[in-house]
Amino acid sequence: MSLSPLTDRLIDALTVLPGVGKKSAQRMALYLLEQNRRGGLQMAASITQAMDRVGSCTQCRIHTEDDLCKICVNPERDQTLLCVVETPADALAVEYSGGYKGLYFVLMGHLSPLDGIGPEQLGIALLVKRVAQGEIKEIIVATNPTVEGEATAHYIADNVSDFNVTVTRIAHGVPVGGELEYTDGSTLNYAFSGRQRLE
Amino acid sequence: MSLSPLTDRLIDALTVLPGVGKKSAQRMALYLLEQNRRGGLQMAASITQAMDRVGSCTQCRIHTEDDLCKICVNPERDQTLLCVVETPADALAVEYSGGYKGLYFVLMGHLSPLDGIGPEQLGIALLVKRVAQGEIKEIIVATNPTVEGEATAHYIADNVSDFNVTVTRIAHGVPVGGELEYTDGSTLNYAFSGRQRLE
Repeated sequence: MSLSPLTDRLIDALTVLPGVGKKSAQRMALYLLEQNRRGGLQMAASITQAMDRVGSCTQCRIHTEDDLCKICVNPERDQTLLCVVETPADALAVEYSGGYKGLYFVLMGHLSPLDGIGPEQLGIALLVKRVAQGEIKEIIVATNPTVEGEATAHYIADNVSDFNVTVTRIAHGVPVGGELEYTDGSTLNYAFSGRQRLE
Repeated sequence: MSLSPLTDRLIDALTVLPGVGKKSAQRMALYLLEQNRRGGLQMAASITQAMDRVGSCTQCRIHTEDDLCKICVNPERDQTLLCVVETPADALAVEYSGGYKGLYFVLMGHLSPLDGIGPEQLGIALLVKRVAQGEIKEIIVATNPTVEGEATAHYIADNVSDFNVTVTRIAHGVPVGGELEYTDGSTLNYAFSGRQRLE
């Protein structure tokens, strides 16, 4: 059954959102129509503005509507530290942790030749050019601990080996609050091989 | 942390959707920005159109952008049967079941004096006027089996008692596929008091 052409189109349109199926979209559409038309209109305006105007930072590729993002233009950030992540969501997760005060570089993915994602798509040339400027002293590679993430990490390390820059990899191990009993084998292997002296 | 003003506004705007918190909204916003800007723009256009133009059917109060909804103008529907439901979502659920071929009347809620919802908000006068026209022979009251839903059902029955119309209530009992062991007491009571002769 369908309610009316416009309502059907609204329901279909809402299913483009990740994690939203037909049933959730129907619930959202009816909620907007019955209880929050103003919120719906504001949401539509925000989406249109963002889709039209948000681009990428020319330096680190994080989403921004300006030439450089908030983090790149912030003089209080440590300009010698560069954290390389796969996605803006990863950069956000690091930011929420609150402990990192350097800059970022977003790859927008990882090396995946089968999907046609090579060094050009990841902006490796831009990264190398940035390192060549000499201000960065350490690159912290925070790609995901997957096969592709590891391969990307090594590819980056190889490409900047000619410059006077330290390349580090974030530690992998048992998460805080986790229990050894329920930790998978490869995480435990990482935890053991990355053990540090207890001072 | 925030990415950029427009991205933040997009994330905030998406949280108006029911069931969408900050974290899901962020995921949706980044997905739209990174992978589906066209889908995002189309969604925004669909929302704006629907919010601006979808109203209610003047006869049954179901959402429609026309004067009368698809169901009310369909000559193949049984014009003597009227199903009264609380919300358009309830009407949709009945439609999906495929067994009902009559018309609908949507109350847009149930009697709830504490929330200021009385007979005017539910359009009872419109319902009575429709019954008074004489074409309807049976009103099937399909409000929810809650205290408010039952009160609303009885209120409707009282208000149309002067007319030559049968008022029925949908059956409550053990759902198909359900198990007696896990059925709550009041549902079982309904199932027993509503028992029918096995032919």
